Amino acid sequence: MALIVQKFGGTSVGTTERIQGVADKVKGFREQGHDVVVVVSAMSGETNRLVELARSMQSQPTPREMDVLLSTGEQVTIALLSMALNERGCPATSYTGGQVAIVTDSAHTKARIKRIDTERIVRDLALGRVVVVAGFQGRDEQDNITTLGRGGSDTTAVALAAALKADECQIYTDVDGVYTTDPRVVEGARRLDKITFEEMLEMASLGSRVLQIRAVEFAGKYNVNLRVLHTFQDGPGTLITLDEGIAMESPVVSGIAFNRDEAKLTIKGVPDIPGVASRILGPVSRANIEVDMIVQNTAADKTTDFTFTVHRNDYDRAKVVVEQIVAELEAREYHGDMKIAKVSIVGVGMRSHAGVATRMFEALAAEGINIQIISTSEIKVSVIIAEKYLELAVRALHSAFELDREPTEDNGV
Amino acid sequence: MALIVQKFGGTSVGTTERIQGVADKVKGFREQGHDVVVVVSAMSGETNRLVELARSMQSQPTPREMDVLLSTGEQVTIALLSMALNERGCPATSYTGGQVAIVTDSAHTKARIKRIDTERIVRDLALGRVVVVAGFQGRDEQDNITTLGRGGSDTTAVALAAALKADECQIYTDVDGVYTTDPRVVEGARRLDKITFEEMLEMASLGSRVLQIRAVEFAGKYNVNLRVLHTFQDGPGTLITLDEGIAMESPVVSGIAFNRDEAKLTIKGVPDIPGVASRILGPVSRANIEVDMIVQNTAADKTTDFTFTVHRNDYDRAKVVVEQIVAELEAREYHGDMKIAKVSIVGVGMRSHAGVATRMFEALAAEGINIQIISTSEIKVSVIIAEKYLELAVRALHSAFELDREPTEDNGV
Repeated sequence: MALIVQKFGGTSVGTTERIQGVADKVKGFREQGHDVVVVVSAMSGETNRLVELARSMQSQPTPREMDVLLSTGEQVTIALLSMALNERGCPATSYTGGQVAIVTDSAHTKARIKRIDTERIVRDLALGRVVVVAGFQGRDEQDNITTLGRGGSDTTAVALAAALKADECQIYTDVDGVYTTDPRVVEGARRLDKITFEEMLEMASLGSRVLQIRAVEFAGKYNVNLRVLHTFQDGPGTLITLDEGIAMESPVVSGIAFNRDEAKLTIKGVPDIPGVASRILGPVSRANIEVDMIVQNTAADKTTDFTFTVHRNDYDRAKVVVEQIVAELEAREYHGDMKIAKVSIVGVGMRSHAGVATRMFEALAAEGINIQIISTSEIKVSVIIAEKYLELAVRALHSAFELDREPTEDNGV
Repeated sequence: MALIVQKFGGTSVGTTERIQGVADKVKGFREQGHDVVVVVSAMSGETNRLVELARSMQSQPTPREMDVLLSTGEQVTIALLSMALNERGCPATSYTGGQVAIVTDSAHTKARIKRIDTERIVRDLALGRVVVVAGFQGRDEQDNITTLGRGGSDTTAVALAAALKADECQIYTDVDGVYTTDPRVVEGARRLDKITFEEMLEMASLGSRVLQIRAVEFAGKYNVNLRVLHTFQDGPGTLITLDEGIAMESPVVSGIAFNRDEAKLTIKGVPDIPGVASRILGPVSRANIEVDMIVQNTAADKTTDFTFTVHRNDYDRAKVVVEQIVAELEAREYHGDMKIAKVSIVGVGMRSHAGVATRMFEALAAEGINIQIISTSEIKVSVIIAEKYLELAVRALHSAFELDREPTEDNGV
């Protein structure tokens, strides 16, 4: 007997048959005696259809009206799922985000949740009803419809779980959990039973896109037990939870993340004087270019080298900005490279273990892979390498940290 | 400088191109200095699509969830039209029925409007904005989404016009006005410039379906000037308004209505005693069969004949009920006929003119058309004739009352 919030994304509710399947699944949980709140997205394809309609009306659709339009997608799904549940003798009531009410700020198309009134939901649950809530949407204080932007349905589910103090928030997807790394790259990649919020954040932002970062942050902040599961396959999935009790028995490194979306830019011979970093990054950020890694090494003489990475889509624009910076700072030159990849080892375990980075560098050296840039945080070490070595590096690290083995013992350094 | 409520139905907003066309039209009114509130339906086809989705989920879709589902149809249209208006530099804001708020009772799928809060609309109009409102929908006191049922968008428009004390409520359709009779039957059928609410009610309920009866009733009750116009053709349309100043100059008869949806049932030799009518119609109404005309003539001896008409779809069921009644009342026999048609002359003018019915009967007699049943009200005379004479009768009456001529003089009896 628990209170569970379940979230089904667009693919899970992509056809009427799939909605029926979700209804069967939800009914199963009810029959086990659990209270269930279901959060659903728009049927897959629907949001794109609506966006195209909008674009045919207005070159830059008014954000407020875009929210009125897009929010219909989830509204259709909540009604259909509630009908399917009622048909199964499983009483259900649907609510739009505004009806719940999920109250947000007024930043249309990317609103932030301010508070959630759970009164109606609590009352329905007490009556033995399943509550079906439209993900991705809310209303502002003036009763305008808002949407939460990308990954908003995950955020809705986690926020509801937090507000309802649910025992678990289950995110159903097309994967059966979070893996030590991408199974398409490493054959021995293994599903993790548990992972911490922080590890998940590093894994997600580094390319293992299972959950939206924002939802994980939210879950971490409010300590919501988050579980990633496969919609149409049974299995325990991966539980994303607090650090407690995991680090002790867990391996040093939980997973290997990577991406090849980035490009690097290095400015050489930058005067080693205070304020130089902001004089470089200021113009870049003013050009609306997001920067990921930033590395500056100790100056050897009176100049230093400054490197940062940007998304490959922004590479050409970034080069134009950098050319100007080089001239203004009277730096020596700059050098750019698109053919790079970032590989990271992630794990809360490494906090308390020395030598994790060393083992990483050794593993890469053993394969003859040159490391161009190194950057570290509390629970990860990232390196930039030539793109062509990416798969080789990921496999070497997966093996070096024994991630293909079940973590029955501490296999740290 | 007037306040106009304009309603565009599903066909008028059936494609993105048509929504653009409506936006152009609305912009034109704004540029003339009018304040405009636009009420729109779902894009044609959308409601049927949603109903099919619902039926694939639940054999008898839960009404509350049906409303959640169907209301998305208009919500899509209001967003798209607002975008199209904004694109044209004509600031617009959309509201769902619930947001306005149009507050209804809780009779899902056939809710009745209880009150309308016009505060947001008035404020937006004062700011020079066009207000786009979703037709057909509202919310109940508990903030559940409701829909108004068939023809609900017309009702929304009229109710808004009443609440806002608008100068005119314009209903855009695929006809350019209300005609003296069906132009497909009578070549000389003529568009009426004006017609009274009562006449329109009689015309509408008798088959000239241009406007939903409910909206006309509403308009009459709150004295809203209602105008029927063609969406994509310019023209004055037909103004539906109060009796005042019309009857004086108008012809006796405004139009000829007809339908062939009915069947008649006659019970012969019914004992002429008090309470017999209810003993006949009670069982019929308990069988959920709607009765239109009811005629009983003075008894010749101690028995009388009792005739009523029902919709043809209910004819077979009605016969079964009538058979029992005949047995119970020990009536002589019953006789039924599906091949009938009802033809009516409608006009407020006939109130003050004698001999209108006579002229009608003479015109029919001149064509050798036998009258089976006669029924009259304040502003109409209806006859039942054999179906095969329908077109002939309508043409004869149209001509007899000179409806093909412009009403420049009193062409009454």
